[in-house]
Amino acid sequence: MVRILLIGCGSVGRGFLKVISRKMEWLRSAGIDPVIVGVTDSKGGLYDENGLDPEDVLRKKATGGFDNSISSLDLIEKVDFDVGIETTPTNAETGEPGLTHIKKMLERGANVITSNKGPLIVDFHGLCGFAKKRGLSLKYEATVGGAMPLISLIEKTLAGNEVYSIEGIFNGTCNYILSRMEKELFPFSHVLLEAQELGIAEKDPSYDIEGIDTAGKLVILANAIMDMKVGMKDVEIRGISEITPEAMELATRNGYTIRLIGEVRKNTGKLRVYPRLVSKSHPLAIYGTLNAALVKTDLAGEVFVSGRGAGSIETASAILNDLIGLYS
Amino acid sequence: MVRILLIGCGSVGRGFLKVISRKMEWLRSAGIDPVIVGVTDSKGGLYDENGLDPEDVLRKKATGGFDNSISSLDLIEKVDFDVGIETTPTNAETGEPGLTHIKKMLERGANVITSNKGPLIVDFHGLCGFAKKRGLSLKYEATVGGAMPLISLIEKTLAGNEVYSIEGIFNGTCNYILSRMEKELFPFSHVLLEAQELGIAEKDPSYDIEGIDTAGKLVILANAIMDMKVGMKDVEIRGISEITPEAMELATRNGYTIRLIGEVRKNTGKLRVYPRLVSKSHPLAIYGTLNAALVKTDLAGEVFVSGRGAGSIETASAILNDLIGLYS
Repeated sequence: MVRILLIGCGSVGRGFLKVISRKMEWLRSAGIDPVIVGVTDSKGGLYDENGLDPEDVLRKKATGGFDNSISSLDLIEKVDFDVGIETTPTNAETGEPGLTHIKKMLERGANVITSNKGPLIVDFHGLCGFAKKRGLSLKYEATVGGAMPLISLIEKTLAGNEVYSIEGIFNGTCNYILSRMEKELFPFSHVLLEAQELGIAEKDPSYDIEGIDTAGKLVILANAIMDMKVGMKDVEIRGISEITPEAMELATRNGYTIRLIGEVRKNTGKLRVYPRLVSKSHPLAIYGTLNAALVKTDLAGEVFVSGRGAGSIETASAILNDLIGLYS
Repeated sequence: MVRILLIGCGSVGRGFLKVISRKMEWLRSAGIDPVIVGVTDSKGGLYDENGLDPEDVLRKKATGGFDNSISSLDLIEKVDFDVGIETTPTNAETGEPGLTHIKKMLERGANVITSNKGPLIVDFHGLCGFAKKRGLSLKYEATVGGAMPLISLIEKTLAGNEVYSIEGIFNGTCNYILSRMEKELFPFSHVLLEAQELGIAEKDPSYDIEGIDTAGKLVILANAIMDMKVGMKDVEIRGISEITPEAMELATRNGYTIRLIGEVRKNTGKLRVYPRLVSKSHPLAIYGTLNAALVKTDLAGEVFVSGRGAGSIETASAILNDLIGLYS
C-alpha cells in the first residue's frame, strides 16, 4: 500500500486523480496499491485514512464539496502518508507555498513528487540534500517538459554518459506563437491575442513570452543534470515579444525559422534563453505547442526527444512515472 | 564488485571495453566496481579471476594475443561472474551462438546484457521466462536503436502508459541510402555502392536493405513492449531496393520523402516493414544514419526520440546503461 497525500488540485492535481483512477487496476497488478489519503487545494480539502475514491474527489472538487476547515499544512501534519504530491502553482521568486509544503512533507518522513518548479528554482540543492539526509526521494520529472521525458531520459536511459549540453524548447506557448508567426507572418501582438483566445497563452502572458518559464526549467536542469549550483540570476534571458514579422520573413526566406531556445552548456557554465535562428531541417524546428530537447553526451552522441510539454493528463503521466519509479 | 564476463569482442565488445576503461572511476564512485574476469571472441580469449585490464585486453585483441585454447562455452562454465555481456553477431534464424551463450550464462546464475538480436528474435519469451524463474535479469537496450534509448525510454520514462504503436527508422544504412537518393535523385544501386565504399553498407547488404534487420528489431519491440508473442514470420516485410529515383522525385515534389519504416500497432497486432511516404515536416523525416521512433501512448500522447543507431561506443553506451540499471 502506498498512501498518497495530494497537495494542489488544479489542472495537474485533477489530471493526477484521473490518471490514478484509470490506472488503479494496472498499478495493483504491478504491486503498487495506491491509496489517496488526502487531497487539498488552496481553500480546503478532503481526507480519509482508509482512502478516498479519486472520482468522488473530482466530483466534490467540481461541486464545491471540499471541507473548508481543512488546510494543506494541517493535513501534512496530521495524516500518515508515504508520498506527498505537490502540484500547487509555481512562484519562481519565493517558491511558496510549494517550498514549505515539500519541506514539511520530507520532515514527516515522506517521499515527495512535485510538478511545481518554484521550490526547485529557489532551493534545489537545499531540498535534495534535505531529502537525501533522511533517506527520502524527491522526484520532479513533471517540472520540465510535461510528458516529454527529459530528466528521467538522461538519468535512466543515458546513465554513465557525461552531458555536455542541453538545448531545447521548453515553453509550448512561445513555440505556438512562433510557429504561427512563421506560417502567417502576422505581428507578434496579433498571434498572442489569438493564442490567448485559444487558451494557449495566459491573460498575463509575460511569464511565458519573456522567457521566465523557460529559464526556470533550465535552472532545474542545470542543477539536476549538470552538477551546477545556479539560480534564476545566473540565466541570461531574452523573450520573444520583440520578434517582428520582418525578422521572421528574413529567416524563413533563408531556410531558417526563429525559436525560443533554452540552453545550458557544461564547458562555459552558461545558461541562456533567447530567440535563435534554427534551420528548418534542424530537429528543434518543431511546430505548435510541442516541447523538444537535444542532449549532447560523450558516449551516446546527440539524443533528441520531443513530446507534449503541457496538459493535465500529460503532466500527470510524468508524476505517475515518478511514482512507479519509487515503488516498483 | 561486479564480475563481468564479456562474450564477443568485435566492434561492440571492444567499444564496451573502451567505455568501461573510460568510465572506471565514475562507476566506482557510483558504487559499482566492475571487474572484467573474462573476454572471448570466436577464436579464443583471456581470463583472470582477479580482473583483466580493459586496455590490455584491447591491445592483445589487436595483436593476436588471445589464448586460442579458451572458448566462450568453457569460460561460461569455468569462471565465476555476476553478469554476462553477449555481443556476438546476430543470426536471426538460429539465434546462435548467442542463444546458447545466454542460456548457459543464466544457468550459471548470472544476469545477462546483450546487444545480439538473434537470441531475442528466436526465443524472446523463453529466455525472459527462464531468467525470471531464476530471479535474474536479461537486458537488451542495445539490440534496438544503438544509442537511441527506446526500450528503456518506454519502460523507465513512460511507465504506466499503454503503448498504442511504435513507428520508427531502425536501420541507419537504409536511411542513409534514402537520404542520399532524396538529395541527389541517384539510382538505388549507385547510392548503395557509395554507401559500401564508405563502410555504411555491408558487402552483402541484403540483411539491411531487404528490411530483415528492421523486422528483427520490431519483433523484439513487439514482444518486449506490446505484450505480443511474435516472431519473424509475423512481420510483413518490404525493403528499399525497388525504390526508383522517379518515385523519390515524385515524393519530394509533393513535400514528401520516402523512408523505410518499421511499425507495430497494438489494435491490429500487425508488424510491418515498408518504404513509406513521410511528409518532410514529419519528425520521422530524418537524415543520414540516424535512428528515430515515434511512440503513441494513452497518457503522454506522442513521444518522439532520435539518436545514433549504430557505432561501437554508442552501442556500448546502451550496454553501460543496462549495467548501471542492474547494479545501482
